[in-house]
Amino acid sequence: MTHIDLNSDLGESFGTWRLGDDAAMLDVVTSANVACGFHAGDPRTLLETCARAVAAGVVIGAQVGYRDLPGFGRRFIDYAHADLVADVLYQLGALDGLARVAGGAIRYVKPHGALYNTIVHHEEQAAAVVEAVGRYDPALPVLGLPGSVFLRLAEKAGLRTVSEAFVDRGYTPAGTLVPRGEPGALLQDPAEVAERMVRLVERGEIVAVDGTVVPVRADSLCVHGDSPGAIAMAEAVRGALVRAGVTLAPFAGAEE
Amino acid sequence: MTHIDLNSDLGESFGTWRLGDDAAMLDVVTSANVACGFHAGDPRTLLETCARAVAAGVVIGAQVGYRDLPGFGRRFIDYAHADLVADVLYQLGALDGLARVAGGAIRYVKPHGALYNTIVHHEEQAAAVVEAVGRYDPALPVLGLPGSVFLRLAEKAGLRTVSEAFVDRGYTPAGTLVPRGEPGALLQDPAEVAERMVRLVERGEIVAVDGTVVPVRADSLCVHGDSPGAIAMAEAVRGALVRAGVTLAPFAGAEE
Amino acid sequence: MTHIDLNSDLGESFGTWRLGDDAAMLDVVTSANVACGFHAGDPRTLLETCARAVAAGVVIGAQVGYRDLPGFGRRFIDYAHADLVADVLYQLGALDGLARVAGGAIRYVKPHGALYNTIVHHEEQAAAVVEAVGRYDPALPVLGLPGSVFLRLAEKAGLRTVSEAFVDRGYTPAGTLVPRGEPGALLQDPAEVAERMVRLVERGEIVAVDGTVVPVRADSLCVHGDSPGAIAMAEAVRGALVRAGVTLAPFAGAEE
Amino acid sequence: MTHIDLNSDLGESFGTWRLGDDAAMLDVVTSANVACGFHAGDPRTLLETCARAVAAGVVIGAQVGYRDLPGFGRRFIDYAHADLVADVLYQLGALDGLARVAGGAIRYVKPHGALYNTIVHHEEQAAAVVEAVGRYDPALPVLGLPGSVFLRLAEKAGLRTVSEAFVDRGYTPAGTLVPRGEPGALLQDPAEVAERMVRLVERGEIVAVDGTVVPVRADSLCVHGDSPGAIAMAEAVRGALVRAGVTLAPFAGAEE
Repeated sequence: MTHIDLNSDLGESFGTWRLGDDAAMLDVVTSANVACGFHAGDPRTLLETCARAVAAGVVIGAQVGYRDLPGFGRRFIDYAHADLVADVLYQLGALDGLARVAGGAIRYVKPHGALYNTIVHHEEQAAAVVEAVGRYDPALPVLGLPGSVFLRLAEKAGLRTVSEAFVDRGYTPAGTLVPRGEPGALLQDPAEVAERMVRLVERGEIVAVDGTVVPVRADSLCVHGDSPGAIAMAEAVRGALVRAGVTLAPFAGAEE
Repeated sequence: MTHIDLNSDLGESFGTWRLGDDAAMLDVVTSANVACGFHAGDPRTLLETCARAVAAGVVIGAQVGYRDLPGFGRRFIDYAHADLVADVLYQLGALDGLARVAGGAIRYVKPHGALYNTIVHHEEQAAAVVEAVGRYDPALPVLGLPGSVFLRLAEKAGLRTVSEAFVDRGYTPAGTLVPRGEPGALLQDPAEVAERMVRLVERGEIVAVDGTVVPVRADSLCVHGDSPGAIAMAEAVRGALVRAGVTLAPFAGAEE
Repeated sequence: MTHIDLNSDLGESFGTWRLGDDAAMLDVVTSANVACGFHAGDPRTLLETCARAVAAGVVIGAQVGYRDLPGFGRRFIDYAHADLVADVLYQLGALDGLARVAGGAIRYVKPHGALYNTIVHHEEQAAAVVEAVGRYDPALPVLGLPGSVFLRLAEKAGLRTVSEAFVDRGYTPAGTLVPRGEPGALLQDPAEVAERMVRLVERGEIVAVDGTVVPVRADSLCVHGDSPGAIAMAEAVRGALVRAGVTLAPFAGAEE
Repeated sequence: MTHIDLNSDLGESFGTWRLGDDAAMLDVVTSANVACGFHAGDPRTLLETCARAVAAGVVIGAQVGYRDLPGFGRRFIDYAHADLVADVLYQLGALDGLARVAGGAIRYVKPHGALYNTIVHHEEQAAAVVEAVGRYDPALPVLGLPGSVFLRLAEKAGLRTVSEAFVDRGYTPAGTLVPRGEPGALLQDPAEVAERMVRLVERGEIVAVDGTVVPVRADSLCVHGDSPGAIAMAEAVRGALVRAGVTLAPFAGAEE
C-alpha cells in the first residue's frame, strides 16, 4: 500500500505580524516544519503552534534557519562553521523544549530558506548542519532535496535522510527544480498539481517542463501555506491523494 | 559539616563583545548561571561555556532574562503573562539543548537582572516564571532572593527553592539588601567580605549597616565576575570558606 | 472655515511581514505617522512609505517607539533617561534621512504604543522625548493626548503641541478616553463615528459614554488602518467631514 | 607640504558591552569612522562618540555595515539591491542626526567589515552603497580601498573618492594587501610600521613582502584601536609622521 508525507512551514508569525494560516494547514499536512525563532517565530507563537500540531496529530519538525529576522532567513549569510553549528543547536533545543512542554517533541529537522538552498551545494555549511543534528540527536531524520550535498553528508554521518518534492514546482528533464524566474518554474493549477503528485507518489515519476517523463523519488511532499491559493492547492493535493488510495502518514514517529 | 554553594553569572559575551573572565570564575564557583541568549550570550559562547563548566565540574543553571540585548536585560519590561512564560521556556530549552550536547544539562534556574529584581515583588511575572519552570521540568530548583514573591510562589507550586546571599552587598537590619546608591550598599574589601561570608555560612548571621547582627539564611552565595577586582573578591571568599573548613558544593545535582 | 487633520500609523511592516494597507490610508489621511524601525518598519519599507506619502501629498511624521520588535513597542520598558533620548534621536535622524531622500522631511513627532501611553503620565520619559525633539529640531511639533504630561512638558519647552482625538474611542464625562476593556471603549459603527467626529470638529464637543456632552479640543483625528473595517471607518469619517464642509489639511507644513 | 589623514573605527560598543578605547583614539586620529547601529553602536554610545569627536576636532564619518549584530557585520550577507540601499540610507540618516545634535555632521562614508571587503569586487553591492551615498548627499566623499570596484563606481557616479592604506598590513608586489593568514599579512612592530608609513606618505611607496618597493597612493591611513597594542602602534605612527614634518589633517571638511 502506497503512503506519503505532506509537510509545510508553520509558526512563521512574529509578534504582531502574522503569517500563514496555520490552523488550515494543520488539517492538510502530516508534518509541520515549525520555525525556531531565528528567521521567524516568537516563542509564544511557537509554543502555540506546537500545541496545535500535537492536538492535530501532526508531527513536529524543527525548521532551522539563519539568524536574520529582517531577511526572514532568505539571504545567504557566510557563517563560520562553529557559529552555524551552535546556532542550529540553539534552535533545536529551543523548539524541542517548547514541543515537549506542548506534549510532543521534534521528530525531524528541515533547514529553511537560504540555508536550505545553500546546503544543496555548500559543503561547509551542509557539514555544520549535519554536525549539529548528529550532536543533538543522531536519531533525528533530516528532510531535504534529493541529490543535495546536505542529504549526502547526512547519510554519510549515519543520519536518516528523507527526500522531498515540491508540489508547485516544475522539474527539468534531469529531475532537478526549474529555477525560479524561468518559464514553468511555478505551477498554479491545483487540479494539475494534484494529478502530478498522485502520479509521482504512485509511479515515482513526474512530467518535466519539456514533456519528458523523469523519475523522482520523494518520501514527503512540500506544500506552501502562505496564501489562500496555496491552501486550496494543498487541499487539492491531499484530496487527490486520498481519493487515489494513498495513505497520508508522517515519515517520522508520531507523537506518543 | 557545613557546606555552601558559590554561584556566578557566566556566558554573558555576545559575538565580538566579550564580558567577564569565565575561565577564572569556573575555578571559583560551584554553580554557573549561564545566560540563555535573550539578554546576553550568543549560541557559540553558550555552547563553549557549557562545555567548560562540564569540564570544570561546575553545575549549569539557566540564567533566563528579558528579551533585551541593548539593555542587557536590566530594564523592566511589562510582559504579557503568556509571552513571559513562552520566552522563559524558549530560553530553558535552548540552553538545556546546548548543555546536553556539552555533556551536562541545566540543573536549576536563576532569573537575571531586571527580571530577578521585578519578581521579588511582582506577582504576575513571578507566577509566569514559576509556571514556565514547572512546565519545563518541575524537578528544577529555582535560585532567588529569600523572602521574594518568586520563591514563595515557587514553593507553593512545589518547586525546590534555593536562597542566595550576595557577597558584596550590605544588608539592612531587616535582613534585606541596602538599595544600590545608598551608603553601605556595596562592599569592596575582599578580606572583610570573605570574613562576613564565613560568619554567614557558619552561624547564619550577618552584620547589617547599622552594626546590628541579623539572621540571614543562604544555600548559595552569589559572586560577581565582571571585573578583575570581582574575581579577586570571589577568590578571597572561596579561600576563606575553605580555610574555615566549609565544603564548597553545588546545591543541585552535579553533572553525571 | 473649519479645518482638521487626519493622522494614521503607516510603515509598520517588517521584512516579509506586512501590516496595514498603507496605500488605502494615504488616500484618507493628511498626516502619516511613519514608524522609525525600532518597534516596526524595515528601512526599505520606510523609504517606500515616505515616497508614497510625498507622492500623495501627505505630511510625514516620525512615529518613534521603544526598541522592541517582538513586542511591537507595546510593552512599557523602563529606560534610563539618556538611553531614551538617544533612541528617539536615532529614530528621528533615520526617518528624516529616508524622508529627505524621498523628497520630503519629517514635519512632526508622534510617540507610538507604550511610549505614547507612558508619557501621558510618566514625567521622566516624557521629559526625555521632549528633550530629544528639542535637540533634534525645536521647530518640530509634537502630536499627543490633550492633558498629557508629554504635551505639557513640550509646551513648557517651547515646542508646538498638537492635540488629537481618537475616532473610534469612547470618552468619559471628564473628557478622557474610556480605558480599553471597559464598556463603550471601542466604537465600531462607521456612521456613528463619522457623525461624532463632525460634531467634534464643528462644535468642539463629544458625547461621553454616559450621554453627557463634553468639550474636547483636537487639531488632529487619529484613524486606524490595520484592518479592512478600520479603513472603511476612516473613509466614512473623511467623507462625512468633507460633506460637512470641513477642510482636511495637515497641521504641519506640507512637503515643498 | 605633505599632509595625511588618520582614520580609525569608533563607537563600536553596544550597551553593556564595551569595545575599543575611543578616548585614546580621538587623540590620535583626524577622522573617526563612527558605527551606525547595524553592526555595532547603540544610540547613546553613538551620540556620545559624536560629541567627543566634535570636542576633539575629529571629523565624523559614517561607518555603515550589514545589519548583523551577532556577526559584528563581519559576515557576507547576500542583500537584495533595494534592501542594501535602504539599510545604508537608514544608517546615514541616523548617524547624521546624532552627529548634528552633537554639533557636527557626517563628512564621509566608510563601509565596515564584510561590506567593505565585499564591495572591493562585488559590483551589485558596490553599486547599492554608491547609490545610497549619492541619494543621501552627493557631496559626501567615500573612503575605501584603492582599485576597488567600490571606488571605481563611486568615481563614475561623481562622488569624491578617498584611498586608504592600512598601517599594520603587509602588501604584495602588486600593491594589494597580503591576505590574512598568509605570512607577512600582519605587522606588529610599531617602529617598523611607523617608518613604513612615513615613507608611504612622503614618497608614495611601500616595501612589499618580497622586498620590492611598490607605489601605493593613500589619502588616509587606517589605524586600529581595539587593543592596547593597537593604540600604541597608532600613537607611534602619528608621532613618526609629526616628527617627519607631515601635517595630519582630515581629508573631509572639519566640523564648523
